[in-house]
Order: sequence, then C-alpha cells, then structure tokens
Amino acid sequence: MANIAELNDAVKNAKPGENIVLANGVWKDVQIKFTGKGTDNNPITIKAETSGEVFIEGVSNLEISGEYLEVEGLFFRNGQSPTSNVIAFRTSEKDVANNCSVSNCVILDFNNLERDKDNLWVQFYGKHNTLDHCYLAGKTNGGPTVRVDLKGNQSIRNYHQIVNNHFGPRPRKGGARGETIQLGSSFTSMSPSNTTIANNLFEACNGEVEIISSKTNFNIIKNNVFYKSEGSVVTRHGNYCLIDGNYFIGDGENENYGGIRIVNTGHWVTNNLFYNLKGQNFRSPLAIMNGIPKSPLNRYNQVTDVVVAYNTYVGSNSPWQFGVGTNIAQSDVLPKSEIRSARPLRTEVVNNVIYNSVGDANPIIEHDKADGVTFASNIIHNDGVEFAKRDGLTPAELTLTNIGSDISAPITGFDDVEIYNGFDFETITEDLLGKPRSKSNQIGAILNSGNINLDVLDKTKYGANWYSNVVEAKEPTTHTVKNSDELVAKLKVADNGDVVELNDGSYAITESLIINKTITIQSKGKAEILYDGAANTPALALHPYGKLTLKNLKLKGTNTQYAFASLKENMSNHFGLEVLDSEISNFNFALKVYKQSFAEEILFKNTSISNCKNGLELSEETNDKGDYNTEYLTINNCNFNNVEQNVIDYYRGGYDESTIGGNLLLSNSTFTNCGAKEKNRMLLNHRGIVNVNITKNTFKNNPVEYVAILWGAKNNVESENILSNSGKIKTEENLKMKLMY
Amino acid sequence: MANIAELNDAVKNAKPGENIVLANGVWKDVQIKFTGKGTDNNPITIKAETSGEVFIEGVSNLEISGEYLEVEGLFFRNGQSPTSNVIAFRTSEKDVANNCSVSNCVILDFNNLERDKDNLWVQFYGKHNTLDHCYLAGKTNGGPTVRVDLKGNQSIRNYHQIVNNHFGPRPRKGGARGETIQLGSSFTSMSPSNTTIANNLFEACNGEVEIISSKTNFNIIKNNVFYKSEGSVVTRHGNYCLIDGNYFIGDGENENYGGIRIVNTGHWVTNNLFYNLKGQNFRSPLAIMNGIPKSPLNRYNQVTDVVVAYNTYVGSNSPWQFGVGTNIAQSDVLPKSEIRSARPLRTEVVNNVIYNSVGDANPIIEHDKADGVTFASNIIHNDGVEFAKRDGLTPAELTLTNIGSDISAPITGFDDVEIYNGFDFETITEDLLGKPRSKSNQIGAILNSGNINLDVLDKTKYGANWYSNVVEAKEPTTHTVKNSDELVAKLKVADNGDVVELNDGSYAITESLIINKTITIQSKGKAEILYDGAANTPALALHPYGKLTLKNLKLKGTNTQYAFASLKENMSNHFGLEVLDSEISNFNFALKVYKQSFAEEILFKNTSISNCKNGLELSEETNDKGDYNTEYLTINNCNFNNVEQNVIDYYRGGYDESTIGGNLLLSNSTFTNCGAKEKNRMLLNHRGIVNVNITKNTFKNNPVEYVAILWGAKNNVESENILSNSGKIKTEENLKMKLMY
Repeated sequence: MANIAELNDAVKNAKPGENIVLANGVWKDVQIKFTGKGTDNNPITIKAETSGEVFIEGVSNLEISGEYLEVEGLFFRNGQSPTSNVIAFRTSEKDVANNCSVSNCVILDFNNLERDKDNLWVQFYGKHNTLDHCYLAGKTNGGPTVRVDLKGNQSIRNYHQIVNNHFGPRPRKGGARGETIQLGSSFTSMSPSNTTIANNLFEACNGEVEIISSKTNFNIIKNNVFYKSEGSVVTRHGNYCLIDGNYFIGDGENENYGGIRIVNTGHWVTNNLFYNLKGQNFRSPLAIMNGIPKSPLNRYNQVTDVVVAYNTYVGSNSPWQFGVGTNIAQSDVLPKSEIRSARPLRTEVVNNVIYNSVGDANPIIEHDKADGVTFASNIIHNDGVEFAKRDGLTPAELTLTNIGSDISAPITGFDDVEIYNGFDFETITEDLLGKPRSKSNQIGAILNSGNINLDVLDKTKYGANWYSNVVEAKEPTTHTVKNSDELVAKLKVADNGDVVELNDGSYAITESLIINKTITIQSKGKAEILYDGAANTPALALHPYGKLTLKNLKLKGTNTQYAFASLKENMSNHFGLEVLDSEISNFNFALKVYKQSFAEEILFKNTSISNCKNGLELSEETNDKGDYNTEYLTINNCNFNNVEQNVIDYYRGGYDESTIGGNLLLSNSTFTNCGAKEKNRMLLNHRGIVNVNITKNTFKNNPVEYVAILWGAKNNVESENILSNSGKIKTEENLKMKLMY
Repeated sequence: MANIAELNDAVKNAKPGENIVLANGVWKDVQIKFTGKGTDNNPITIKAETSGEVFIEGVSNLEISGEYLEVEGLFFRNGQSPTSNVIAFRTSEKDVANNCSVSNCVILDFNNLERDKDNLWVQFYGKHNTLDHCYLAGKTNGGPTVRVDLKGNQSIRNYHQIVNNHFGPRPRKGGARGETIQLGSSFTSMSPSNTTIANNLFEACNGEVEIISSKTNFNIIKNNVFYKSEGSVVTRHGNYCLIDGNYFIGDGENENYGGIRIVNTGHWVTNNLFYNLKGQNFRSPLAIMNGIPKSPLNRYNQVTDVVVAYNTYVGSNSPWQFGVGTNIAQSDVLPKSEIRSARPLRTEVVNNVIYNSVGDANPIIEHDKADGVTFASNIIHNDGVEFAKRDGLTPAELTLTNIGSDISAPITGFDDVEIYNGFDFETITEDLLGKPRSKSNQIGAILNSGNINLDVLDKTKYGANWYSNVVEAKEPTTHTVKNSDELVAKLKVADNGDVVELNDGSYAITESLIINKTITIQSKGKAEILYDGAANTPALALHPYGKLTLKNLKLKGTNTQYAFASLKENMSNHFGLEVLDSEISNFNFALKVYKQSFAEEILFKNTSISNCKNGLELSEETNDKGDYNTEYLTINNCNFNNVEQNVIDYYRGGYDESTIGGNLLLSNSTFTNCGAKEKNRMLLNHRGIVNVNITKNTFKNNPVEYVAILWGAKNNVESENILSNSGKIKTEENLKMKLMY
C-alpha cells in the first residue's frame, strides 16, 4: 500500500491470512484503523515493506480491533497522536482487540506538544494481546508509556503479553504520571488482569518513582532487567502479583535506582537479583509499605500474606525496609484516612542471601515495626560489620562468583543452610536462571551450577531487531567564531554535541539565539554577548531538545530582556542548561522557565547574576498536580547581586507522598542586596520542593524577612550559612499542602 | 470408641483408610481434635455408630486438620463450644484442613450462653473442604452460622463446597452479625475464594438482612432455595460472584424476604427465579447499590461490570431497584467517606422476564439514576397497568405455567423476543433447570421444555438423611388449676405448647413462675395472680425458650417486684411474650428485659398497666453495636396509668445503614399520668429504633416535655394522636448516631 486510502481499502477487504504491506517511506498524518478477523493460524498482518523503513510521522496513530491481527516493523517518530494514545488495542468502547499483536516496532519521542497533556503510547484493551520486540523511548509528556486498561468485562483476565521489548530511556518527567508501564488503575484494582511483563530490558526508565505500577490482580513480572532506572516495580494496587527472576542493576552510587515496593496482599517476590542499588526508603531494594487501616480504594491497603523468598542482594545497603511510608507523626496535619499505620501481616522474608562487600550496620530498617514479618533462613555476608541481631538473618562468610554481564554474586558456600519451606513453596520450581530447584536446592536467587555467563545487558536481545539505541561516541567539533553573524550561522549548522567558541570581543545580538540541540557556547578569554533584542525575549531561547552549556562568557542585556528562557508553548521535549564561569547582568529575568517546560538539570556554577529585575524563575507549574520545572536546580559558588525579586523561585504544588521530587542545592554562594521587591519578603522561594539543601552561603544586606522557609518533614536542610542583615531561615515541620488525589 | 481418650488414641494412630466409629450415646464435654493424613482414595473417617445417635453435648467442639479426613453422622445439641467455633477446619493457626469433609451432621441450638458472645458454628480454613448434607438451625447468638476464613495463603483459592445442606430456621438476632453464611471478611475481600454454595435449602434464615454475605472473589452461589427467609444474598465485598439458578421464594406478604443485593464489580446474576417477594429497597429482589467514591475497604465500592441476565420475577413488586442506599441527602450529618453517591457503571440488565398478576406502576425504582445500566430484551406482563416507559423493558401478555412446588412461572409466549448477546454470554449455557440454552434459547430463567415438575421444597432432598425438622402438629393440652400449688406444679409438667388455665379466684405466689417453654397461662373469668416474692424478682421469669402468652388475667405485685423479666445472664435462647386482655399493676417494672436477652416479638393488647414505677424496659443493649432487645414491640389498645418512668424504653445504639431493625408499633392506647419521674422528660423512649409507628393514641396529663422524638430519616411516623397536657411529638430528621464500623 502506498497511502492511507489504499491501506483502508486493504483492511476493509482483508481475509484471514492476508498480508498488507506498507510501502517504505514517510506516512504522514495517518490515523490507521486496523480492524478485521483473522484466525489463529491465519492472522491478518500489516507489515512494513522493510522493517524500520516505514515512518509514521506527524499527527498519526494506530488503532486495532478484532481478532488475530498483527502489526510489524513500523517506526513512529517526528510526531504525536491526535488521540489519547499512539497505539490502542481498540477502535471504540465496544470494539476491542483480541489475540492481536504489535511487534518489532519503534516509538521514539512521539510526544504531545505539551507536557501536561497526558497520553499513552500503547494502551491495551481486550484480551490476549501482545506487545513484543518493540523499542519505546523518550516519552516526556504525562502519562504512562504503556497502560493495560481493564474497564469492562471484555478486558479482564486479559493474559496480555508485554515481552522482549526494550524500554529505552524515559527522561525524568518532574512529578507523577511518568510510569513506564501501568497495569490498570485503582478503579479496576479489584479485577483479575493476568498480564505478563517478561524478558524486557528497562534502561534509564527515569520518568517517576514507579517504573512498573501494578494496579490489578494476578500479574506476572518475570525475567526482566531493570538497568539504571530511577524507579521501582511497585504493586501499587491489586494483589497476588508474581515478581520472579528479575535483575535490578544499579551503579552503586545513584540513590534513585529502586527495587520492589510492596503494597497490598499476596504478592510473591522470588528469585530476583538486586545489584549495586543504593536506593533507600521508598526506593530501597525491598520496600514493604505500611497501609492505611481500611484504606480508601485509591490509597494504601495493608500488606498481608506476602512472600519474599530466594532473592539475592549484592552491594545494596539496607536492602529490606519495612513500614515504609509510615506517617503517624503527621497525624496532626493529615486526615485520618491518610495515616499509614497498618503494618504488614503474615509476611515471610525467607531463603534470601545478602552480600555486602562494605559492611552495613542496618541491613533491615524498620520505619515501623516488622512484627508481622517472619524472617527465616536468610544469610548475610557483611564484611564483619555488626548489625542488630535478628532471628532468621545469620551472618556468614561468602565469596562472590563472576557470573557475566559485569555481575558477581554469591552462589556457593551456603548449601548447608536449611531451607524454609513455606506454604506453596513447592511452586518455586526454578532459580533465577531457570535451573530446577528440585535437585540440590539452596537459598538465594541463583543455584550453584558451574559456569554461569549472563548476557542480560546485551541490548540486541531486546526490542526491534532493526533498531539500536547505541550511539557511537563522536568527537565534538569546535566552531570558532569572531563576530555575531558567524555566531548565529555556526549555531545553526553545528551538530548535536558541538562547541561554538567565541574569540575575545563583544558580540551584539538583536534576535534570540535558538538552542535546539546539545551545544556548548564558550569563549577562551572573556567574550561578551550583548543582547539588545525586544523586551521579554531571551538572549538564548531554549527549545525542545536544547541543552545549552554556556561557559566563560559575559551575557548582558538592556534590562528588559531575558538571559535564558524556554518556549512559551509546544515545548514538546525537555531542555537543559549549564552556566559556568560566566557573568549575567542587566536582564528582566536571568532565567524564565514557562509552564510545561522541563529540564532534568539546571546548573549555575562560578557565575554571577547581577542587576536583574528577576533571577531564576521556575514557578509556573501551578496546576498543583505535583509537577515542577526542573528535577535538579544546582547553584554553586555563584554571586547574586542586586536581583530585585524572584531571586530563586522554584515551585511544586500538590502533595503526593510517593513521588519524591524537586532538588535544590544551593551552596558556597553569596547574595547581596537582593529581594528588595519580593512581595512575600522571602529571598529563596522553593515551596513544595522535596529536597532542599542550602549550605555555606553568605546572605548580606538583603532586605527580606526570611531567606527561606524549610519543610522540616521532608528533606529540607540548611547548614553553615552566614546571614547578615538579611532576615532568617525558618523551618516548618509540616507544610499544609493540597492533596493530589 | 466409647470415650474421648479412646478417640484420641484412635486418631493418633489412624492410617489412611481407617474408620473410627463413635459409640452411640451422649458424648459430653468433648473437644475432638481430628488430625491426620488420609488419601483421596483412603480417607480417615470419624463416624457415628448410627448416624444421628451420637450426641455431642455440653461444652464441646470439633477441630479438624490434615488431609482427607471425614466426619459423619454427629448430632451437636444441648451445649455450646468452648472456643470461637463449634466445628473448625483447623487445629491451630498453621495447621489447617485440606480435602476434609463434615457430612450428614446436625447442629441444633448449640448456642453460647450469651447472645453478645459471638461465635461460628462452622469455620472453614484451608482448601477443598466440604460441608454437605448437614442440618444447622437455631443459632441465636452473634456471629454467622458458617464462615469461610481466608487469612493466610493456605486458605485462598479454597474451592470449599457448602452443598446439599438444610439451613433451618435461624431466628431474628436483633441487629447485625446474624448471617447464615459469610464468605471472608472485608479484610480479605481482595482474595480469591472460589467457594461454592450449591443445592442448599435456606428456610426461615431470619438472622439479619444478609443470608449469605459474599465478601471475597469468585464465589459461586448456585441452585439454592431461599425459602421464606428474611434476608438477601449480598455481594457485600469482593467481586466476580456468580449467582446462578437459585430460587427466592416468598409468601407475597412478608416484606422482609429479600432477593439479591449487589455491591462491587463483576457479579453475574443469571437464571434465578424470584417468586412472590415483597421486599423493597435493600430487600428488593434485585437491589443494585450506590457506592462510595473511592470507598474505604470496609464500606461500599461502586457497582461496575455487573450482568443481570435470564432471570424471572413473578409476583414481586418493583423487583429492580437502583441506587439503593443512596444517602446524598444526609451529607450534613455523615462524613464524606460515608456518602454513597457512585452510581452503577457498565451494568447490563437483559433477557429477563417479569410477571405481575397485579400490575405494578414502578417495576423499576431509581433511588438514584440508573444511567450506567443497559436495559435490553426484558419483558413484563403487568396486568395492563401503565409504567414509566423505559427502553429495553417491553410490556407483553404472558401466561403462567404450573411448574410444581406450588410455583407458577411464565415460560411460553416470548420465544420471539430477540436475545441480547452480551460479552461472554455464551458462557450462560443452561437455564435454571439445567436445560441447555444452545437450542431454542429464550429470555427468562426457564426454557419452555414440556412438563416441569419442581420439587425444590421437598425437605428430604437437603440436610442430614436421619433428621427432619418437620414437627407434627399436636393439639395442646389444657391443664386446669384452682390454686397456687397446682399452678406451679402444672406449669412444670406441661408440655411445650400447652395451656394452663386458672379457675376464677386469687392465686398468691411467692416465688417466680418459670417460663422455659411455649406456654399459655389464662383464666376463663378474671383470675388474679398476686405476687409477693422478693424485691426485684419477677412474677413470671422468662427463661431461654420461654414463650409466654398471658391471657385474661390480673397480675398484681406489692410495688417492688417485676411482672415479667428475662434472665440476667445465660439467656442462651430467645424468649417471647404476649399479654392479652390483662391487668398489670403495682410493680417496680411491668417488664424488665436484661442485656443479651432477646424476643422476636413482644405484644401487649387490650391490657392495662398501672401504678408501676417503671413500664416496659428494653434498653440495656448499650454496646452500641446495633443490638436491641426485641424485633417487634407491639402495643395495641392498652392503658398506661400512673407509670412513673421508663414507660416505654426501647433502645438501639450504633448506626448501621443496612441492618434494618427494631419495630415499635404503638396504637389505640391511652397514657395518663405517666412519666412523672422520667429524667429526660420524654414519655416514649425509642432512640435508634428504625421503624416506629405511633398512631391513634391518647396522651393525657403526662408531665413530660416530649411524648416522643421521631427519627425522620428513618421510618419513624406518627398519626392521629391526641395530646393533652402532655408535651409534644417532635421529628428530628437526622439523629447523630455512633457509626458501628
């Protein structure tokens, strides 16, 4: 088929066994409705002429309903969906897909133009549908990447398969609604789903605290690899989820890489390997939450009848945390129906192995008592470090065995540990590698079975066979420029990652410089950019994908413009900003970030900001749904002088206890004569930001009442600041926040 | 085995296939622990030497754990359990029963001595256990007769069978916790239970508003007969219950006989016959409730994805009621988390047949809008009476066919109605009688298949084969007495149901007359009983089973005693009281009902109560758990004169929206000079009683502020009363009540 009309015709007339081939090339603005009735042996297929060379672009989507329909080889890119999903397994509320599949396809950056406009990339309805061997990456707008929908009896007990996919990087979204996969919702949390998520690679799925949010019953999450992903697998609602034989691999540093967080009843966590994870609390390798007694449907049910058996934890501090989310201390500011005081019951943590090459004084952390948990037949290698004695967790001297994929794990030396035989444990028939436990069984995820050579991080095993997200490292080109025209011209032609270097001198610019790729603008000596553009336009306009490093430059306006600003609308992808060793002066705003714009990181270092009406403005996410404008705002060794208001204004509205975001690190900086026109008489505004660290700064002659008000119950701290003639820093334990749900 | 020691020995040594026989006779105070491991083909059994002739009495119980154990032929009577259940399918928290059965046994009146001391008669744990061919009747204390317990993975997906039993009369309990069968609890409402309740007869199971309370998932309630039972089958918690092929049979009069009440998701109500039911609202043949948005675990989830198909309703007014339990109007007095405003969604009511020989203007009642309900392919014979037009419910002229068991139903004349084919409807393969729907299918519960001759009310089909609850009618004997000694003597020897008749004259009594059976005490003329017993003792002591009719007598004290009183403790069964054409005077209390005493009905008619310090006192159930002392307190054409306080004092504490109890009917009576010492200055105290009707009475010169305060939101009404110099009757719409849960 060469166009949508031909395709529609072909679909209309397709009989079982028919193979509809899409011609290679760009298919722009196409809404494909694939309906029909194939059979088990004779499905109807829509295939790319050549896999990966059919590009679905522009305002496009795919909807499927009927029986035994298969889609293969399409590449969704350079566009967005006109509906609430890119691929839907239904064409109307009644017409759903059954036994249909989408295989060997790629969806890349197919984002809505606005971050707050939620959608899904793949939405399952019906039963027995499959998403396999696909690569999905780059979703920046709200909404899970994949969701299984269970509303209606036609979509329960669905046995969908989400297998062999590569879920590539999903950038931090900033706030909630950034899951990679969501199985149902609280409204369908009573329904049997029986969805399987297996053999997928999740790589840098950093959208939010939940990578997979299981919200229905009887789901299976098996043999997946969670690689450097800033989140956890969470049994958020629903019950009886099996999480078996997965790899959770961190880097031993990043504290955002999580493991498995358990809410509700009857889950089994077996045969998993947790490797070099440093996440704590909500993000700990095993986080067992406290529930709310008689919880409302959309909150936290108590954990009961959970089995955590035959797992191995390597290089992961305090891997077992209980009573996570307890908030009894906040009883005064939260309604009773929000208080998580119900501890886990009838839960077994048994037959597990922990290996810490650096000893850990607290392998178990009890945020609330784990008195409903049975520990048995667990051992720990703790490098000789003492820890609070606990029945069922015995110190042992173990060694690591290299098992491939840069992974070492303890697999020998504990075959004499007596295995705890819990109810139904005979159903745990295999270890992490699929070896039968029937003979020479032992505790831990991995049986001792000779040479093991894992290749779980071999990306060719996952996703579309024609697509790789491996980018060859390329040496950046440095484009030297010596006047404004050259600067503008080179900025346009430079490749992603290149450097534009200014010779010494002064560069007068009258129109915004457009930043729509990763680019460094720097000078050797101290070149100066003088911006004389229209009022309220930015010297440097941060477009989608625009990741700017500005280094060693003076940037000066005429008091009416912005130094840096994002787009006011259609900010369809994230930007980024690093300002180093520079001087910013005489602007209306030093930085203006508009609503729906988001940067994973914004850094100011060794930089002065002076004589500006406004400083760093990131406070337009006022929907109070937990969104904010940057994940990390870092200011180190900077000098703020005569910035009249909004000196630092960084806002998050809407309280959600489990998404943990906004990070402000302000250190070694000096603020002088700032905040004179700040209406709320506070120098640093960071209301709702969860992590705030204000340290080693000097505040001098700032005519405000408060330098900052810290949120004591969250991670807001200050230290070693010098305040003179500048108001105070106050801590409020509990901020009154609007509940999000 | 002749005694418990021998039995214990036998159990300890039993091997698969062994048959342990209990000698006929009374086994008193025995706690039988039956443990062991039989096999599928060679179970271990404990059997009565002769079925029904082994009597388990006194403080006794039976606990079973292990595999393939069977119990047969025992008769539990004249006693109570020392533990919280009479028969338990476990011997400890860890040791449960699997594949075990209790068959052909009877549990009769095996009640705790105190009504408030809840227990269970049969409690299931483990998996694949069976209760079959048993007769259970007469439970008066709190707690369901049978409960399936799901706490712990060893008791989920249990596939228990509760089949072929006869659940005989369970008297009204007065308040909650009187279910006949409860499947799980709200705490385990997320768990799969897969319990089957099939082929049982439920006869006069009047314990409370729920006969069966299904609180877990995937239960099957099939082919049961609910005969004149004052309650409903309720899907109280949990989801995906199948209620198929049951008979709900009423008498066309009693408004307490209910049908099926639906809460939660995914239930299927198919092939049921509803016959001569007059229940309304919570008790209507089909009651679809409103839920609480995001309901707490123990309250009301929204109804979604429910199918009501192929049912037949005969002689049942307003059989379909939606939005049952809506209480939006009470938003002011109830917390938000109590407001049932979530209407049913994605619910189908299709392929049903309604037959009303007396037309019904409102076959559908919408307490709240049924806008989430699809009606299709339903027909109604409505005797020509108009009703609000509704798509999917079409008038038709039908005829009834006699199908046996005194039941007639429409089975012909609508084979041309097009059948609605909903999702998965192909799984409805049979009709109510098990006839295949594959050929000549039609709407309604019963296919038209020639001669049908039901015998569903043949009691010999259900329960223990050696026990019948059919009592032969016996002509009562009248014992005539002419003095006090004879009165005392005859009262002792009289049989249940007999009459003791006093010749004219005066009968001086110094000790309480004990009423421990159904008995009538009457005189032809106007005999007088003068009671001169100790202070605070009753002339007539109402013991368990004591059902007294007092007729045509004068009963007089010396101002310090009680005319009638229940026992202070050990009131292990209900009493009853009718006082007709009599005169009660000069007592401390006319009637004193102690805590934990209960009468289904108390009636005073054509009787005077005068010169008493206290009147009718039924206000000791102060646990505020919804209990009260009598279901019906009826006072008609009586005369109260100079009763100083507690003239009528009838109390229920604790608010529970779904149990509907306490009934006060006060009519045609006169109150004069009463209430002078009433502390709260109210003549009639009936706080918390749901149904109150005060009509055609005269209140004259009673020095009180209020005659009564009515609960407007409930069924409290008054009419045609004459008040003179007696305070007023006030209505309060919403009483502040303590919530029970």
